[in-house]
Amino acid sequence: MTREQLVSLIRERSSLLCVGLDTDINKIPAHLRSAKNPLFEFNKAIIDATAQYTVAFKINTAFYEAHGASGWEQMQLTADYIGNSHFKIADAKRGDIGNTADMYARAFFSEMDFDSVTLSPYMGRDSIQPFLEYEDKWAIVLGHTSNQGALDFQTIRTESGEFLYEKMIMKMKDWSDRIMFVVGATKSEAFKSLRAICPQHFFLVPGVGAQGGDMESVIRDGHNSDVGLLINSSRGIIYASSESDFAEKAGMKAFQIQEEMRALLDKFGV
Amino acid sequence: MTREQLVSLIRERSSLLCVGLDTDINKIPAHLRSAKNPLFEFNKAIIDATAQYTVAFKINTAFYEAHGASGWEQMQLTADYIGNSHFKIADAKRGDIGNTADMYARAFFSEMDFDSVTLSPYMGRDSIQPFLEYEDKWAIVLGHTSNQGALDFQTIRTESGEFLYEKMIMKMKDWSDRIMFVVGATKSEAFKSLRAICPQHFFLVPGVGAQGGDMESVIRDGHNSDVGLLINSSRGIIYASSESDFAEKAGMKAFQIQEEMRALLDKFGV
Repeated sequence: MTREQLVSLIRERSSLLCVGLDTDINKIPAHLRSAKNPLFEFNKAIIDATAQYTVAFKINTAFYEAHGASGWEQMQLTADYIGNSHFKIADAKRGDIGNTADMYARAFFSEMDFDSVTLSPYMGRDSIQPFLEYEDKWAIVLGHTSNQGALDFQTIRTESGEFLYEKMIMKMKDWSDRIMFVVGATKSEAFKSLRAICPQHFFLVPGVGAQGGDMESVIRDGHNSDVGLLINSSRGIIYASSESDFAEKAGMKAFQIQEEMRALLDKFGV
Repeated sequence: MTREQLVSLIRERSSLLCVGLDTDINKIPAHLRSAKNPLFEFNKAIIDATAQYTVAFKINTAFYEAHGASGWEQMQLTADYIGNSHFKIADAKRGDIGNTADMYARAFFSEMDFDSVTLSPYMGRDSIQPFLEYEDKWAIVLGHTSNQGALDFQTIRTESGEFLYEKMIMKMKDWSDRIMFVVGATKSEAFKSLRAICPQHFFLVPGVGAQGGDMESVIRDGHNSDVGLLINSSRGIIYASSESDFAEKAGMKAFQIQEEMRALLDKFGV
């Protein structure tokens, strides 16, 4: 998907919402657990109920790998089902040397048709570049994450005075305009400095909802002229109910978040 | 596998060799490509031919994921086939928040029976800890890697004067003695400083062979009293021949490397 197409989706739907399909067999409604493809059946219902409020879906690969080959197949089925009307993210956090990165890119961009893969930056440019060789595909690289452990290394002060995550993003922003950066909503102090460092790039923002991040400050400090933000919610939407009304409740929750987004986009003149 | 069991295997076989199963459908002998499970058929022959010279096998997950669910299944078959007489590494370079790391640990330690998974350190302790909750399982965390891009971020100077990779390993070594660190053989200058920083921990060393690292300096500067090293070779062994004698040639190459290891262990009195 091109940047223009992505920005159009965001504008048309007045939404920055990415729904995270962290589909846990132990959290889906009991009546689905005995289906042949329980993760996929759950996802189909969630996708149908939330699609109109949503610009992106993010599949967290771990939750599928935990079921072996069957889980992998359900991930493929889910990616196919989403189709081309949404930006599709494989939240895989990969990162390896060039010949191995080639294989991961093949897995997510050829074998499946994701628009983007999340990547860890630690191994440097040759671990990112193979993903950018695919036309209109994106690399979404970890910047400053939403978890407690983000403070172990990402905020190390470098010799030149910046935090490590700032220093890394300063370098990576010049590698491609098809790189997005993951910046956790719980790290609200980071958005101003990062938007100054890279005015043009998109940020993928997890941590709203279950992890406690604040959407208003994210949009206020993180937007750019192309909006420049995708905000993810996983558990807060997909597990809004554990009963047979799970899809309906997920749709209501997605609608509520999208309305909040629309109001905040208006408020800040985005 | 416990540390004692791993050290015993190394001593019994006078070998530090890890054979990397980076099994590429385009590089395996033509007569295998039409098999039902070509990657697995290739791996079986390589495992049989190299097992006696080898203490560990490392499965590079990317090469299996590139084939979708069928590839994932062939990874599972390979892990089963290796059995318990070798240390089994899932070279997956994962790294994510706690609830997601739980799922990856389940994939590699419960769904399959790997002894260890390679991980990226960038997201910090809560991305590593779930793997260490499994008894006798190991986390193998990236330290200083063998690729060109290792110089993009890993050698950033921190405010306190160390390289980033040194600073990170200083912290991580106290998290568990079941953490190993990946240190590329091409980074021979790193072994002395890292062995001083963490005298006890194991290093997993890629980059001997196709990537050009020097085994003698790795063993000289990297060993400890428990040997403390696993040295990986992938392409140099498994693609020693592309003809029907591929397994025989792989076995000869593994034997040759193991003999070199035996001589170097003697030379340095390890």
